[in-house]
Amino acid sequence: MSTLPFPASVYAARLDRAAALAAEAGLDAIIVGPGPDLQYLVGVEGDTIERLTALVIGPALAPTVVVPRMELAKVRTTAVGALELRLSDWVDGENPYDLVAAAVGDVTRVGVSDALPALHVVPLGERLDVRLELATPVLRESRMIKDAEEIIELRRAGSAIDAVHRRVPEWLRAGRTEREVAADIADAIVAEGHRTVEFVIVGSGPNGADPHHEVSDRVIEQGDIVVVDIGGAVPSGYNSDSTRTYVVGEPAPEAAERIAVLVRAQQAAVDAARPGVAASEVDAAARDVLTAAGLGEAFLHRTGHGIGVSVHEEPYIAPGNDLVLREGMAFSIEPGIYFPGAWGARIEDIVVMTADGCERLNVAPHALTSV
Amino acid sequence: MSTLPFPASVYAARLDRAAALAAEAGLDAIIVGPGPDLQYLVGVEGDTIERLTALVIGPALAPTVVVPRMELAKVRTTAVGALELRLSDWVDGENPYDLVAAAVGDVTRVGVSDALPALHVVPLGERLDVRLELATPVLRESRMIKDAEEIIELRRAGSAIDAVHRRVPEWLRAGRTEREVAADIADAIVAEGHRTVEFVIVGSGPNGADPHHEVSDRVIEQGDIVVVDIGGAVPSGYNSDSTRTYVVGEPAPEAAERIAVLVRAQQAAVDAARPGVAASEVDAAARDVLTAAGLGEAFLHRTGHGIGVSVHEEPYIAPGNDLVLREGMAFSIEPGIYFPGAWGARIEDIVVMTADGCERLNVAPHALTSV
Repeated sequence: MSTLPFPASVYAARLDRAAALAAEAGLDAIIVGPGPDLQYLVGVEGDTIERLTALVIGPALAPTVVVPRMELAKVRTTAVGALELRLSDWVDGENPYDLVAAAVGDVTRVGVSDALPALHVVPLGERLDVRLELATPVLRESRMIKDAEEIIELRRAGSAIDAVHRRVPEWLRAGRTEREVAADIADAIVAEGHRTVEFVIVGSGPNGADPHHEVSDRVIEQGDIVVVDIGGAVPSGYNSDSTRTYVVGEPAPEAAERIAVLVRAQQAAVDAARPGVAASEVDAAARDVLTAAGLGEAFLHRTGHGIGVSVHEEPYIAPGNDLVLREGMAFSIEPGIYFPGAWGARIEDIVVMTADGCERLNVAPHALTSV
Repeated sequence: MSTLPFPASVYAARLDRAAALAAEAGLDAIIVGPGPDLQYLVGVEGDTIERLTALVIGPALAPTVVVPRMELAKVRTTAVGALELRLSDWVDGENPYDLVAAAVGDVTRVGVSDALPALHVVPLGERLDVRLELATPVLRESRMIKDAEEIIELRRAGSAIDAVHRRVPEWLRAGRTEREVAADIADAIVAEGHRTVEFVIVGSGPNGADPHHEVSDRVIEQGDIVVVDIGGAVPSGYNSDSTRTYVVGEPAPEAAERIAVLVRAQQAAVDAARPGVAASEVDAAARDVLTAAGLGEAFLHRTGHGIGVSVHEEPYIAPGNDLVLREGMAFSIEPGIYFPGAWGARIEDIVVMTADGCERLNVAPHALTSV
């Protein structure tokens, strides 16, 4: 991406807010490596590599980007260039941790971004001679609450992935492998408006019982229940993530019944999601419906995860998470039921908290779809 | 992957060796998260996610894998299942760091794998109440020296990417965009025997002057110098990585001359690479040729990086790295020259250290190729 998805002023505001939140949290500096936090704050994309790139911010610091000289040109096409942030570049053989130390100055409490790997965390902690903390509580405060422009992008992503789900019946049929079906879906994810395919799960029959199954060469059979969990990033970098469950032909009556309960459980969680409610309460809303139907044990995971420039982020909709939901939060609601060796099912929408409830960004039919 | 690339005994030996190396280094335990180290040690692939998966090993510890219950089925298809390693599974709402602490026991010095993100490094350090160290020096000792089976896989990868380079003239021509050419190359990377495309760089004209340019919509013009740097993983997970420089039509005489120097510089580094020589000496061999020709300033990066289950790993062939090369080490030799705003060139082979020299795994023509 050489074109920023948002005006530079958006990034300036995000940097200011992060510095203010750092001050509130008593942090002198935050060191942000490649990953969703860096993408969010300055539009720099890409994974962490062994050469350190890091944004240093803090209540009393001018934002500085430590960057390998060979990455300079790319970094200048982002908000780093647009906002003329201070650059501190280095070449192989130099020590980038010294540059971070210089940018940070004299500090006591320093936070690092979630995604920064041990490869950099350990030497930074030694160089700065502090026990590094996670900057997550600070950065999530900003990232978790989506503004109007971000919601537009998430809506765009939701609508694009819905278009793919509506086309799944074109490709899903007995005699084809999961991998063949997944390849068609991946093409459609791009064709319907994503710039990248982030994941394509096609879990047919017993493979659907593994919540993290991706694809295999299993040939889909008549009567199979098939979990299709798919997502990608639209050009601005915001992600889609939606799951529907399909059946090839007619489902066994017991399976149909259980999936109908799952659809009700998912709806109950959507109904429960509104500002002022704890994340754990939304999780409980889905879990209670399944438990009441004797399916509590079959629901192996949490109900959902936040989404934005990363596919999994705060808030996590999980038992024990007493985080109170607020307007602008966006997350998945995706209860599932899994019967090892037999089949599984999951239904997932992304929702965004509104002033008094939530907006569902995925509206493709939720019920078990026969193909 | 549900099929291990190597017999379970290979992984058992790697685990034993890592524990022995940990003992030598005075480490009581090593915590290995998802990433190349975990793939190397037990065949578990995949990126780090927010749910902790970690292998705990140590001189006095039975290897234990802490794993989210929803990942259990997948983890059992790897060496973790084949070797019947101890499993310690957890579900959302439980604290995985307690499970690591239980597996680790009473310890003073603990190492973590490079790729473990701060998200887990920070809470692990707090829970174990130790200043975590990098396990890199220990794990690299094992990963850096490739055994016969790994070399076979790297050779397979090298041959597959050579086949793609030989076909580049089919697709590279004036009037097409870098992105169009890259799409054809990506298809060929898979068609020629890789299971994944790891990267495709097509840097035409001025874009070639940015060593980390990937692709763009720039339309390739007659006379452009074009850097093509490509790689993927073969089914066993081992990577290819090779760069050749092309010209569309006839090159300007000065460019042709400079690229001929670059080819000599690359050859000089290959000639210098043999057991007993320091990594920095290999770097210097390439750098000296370029410097003598007045091109030293145009060579912006180190000469190379190790390769295996990850694309970039130890040993790094860089100024200042006095690591002594040994038989079985595999790394890239890839000097480049970059002229901002104009063009760039790079030539890259993977080599493996033999008893008295090195074997070049990429043998597609090195000279500037006119298409």
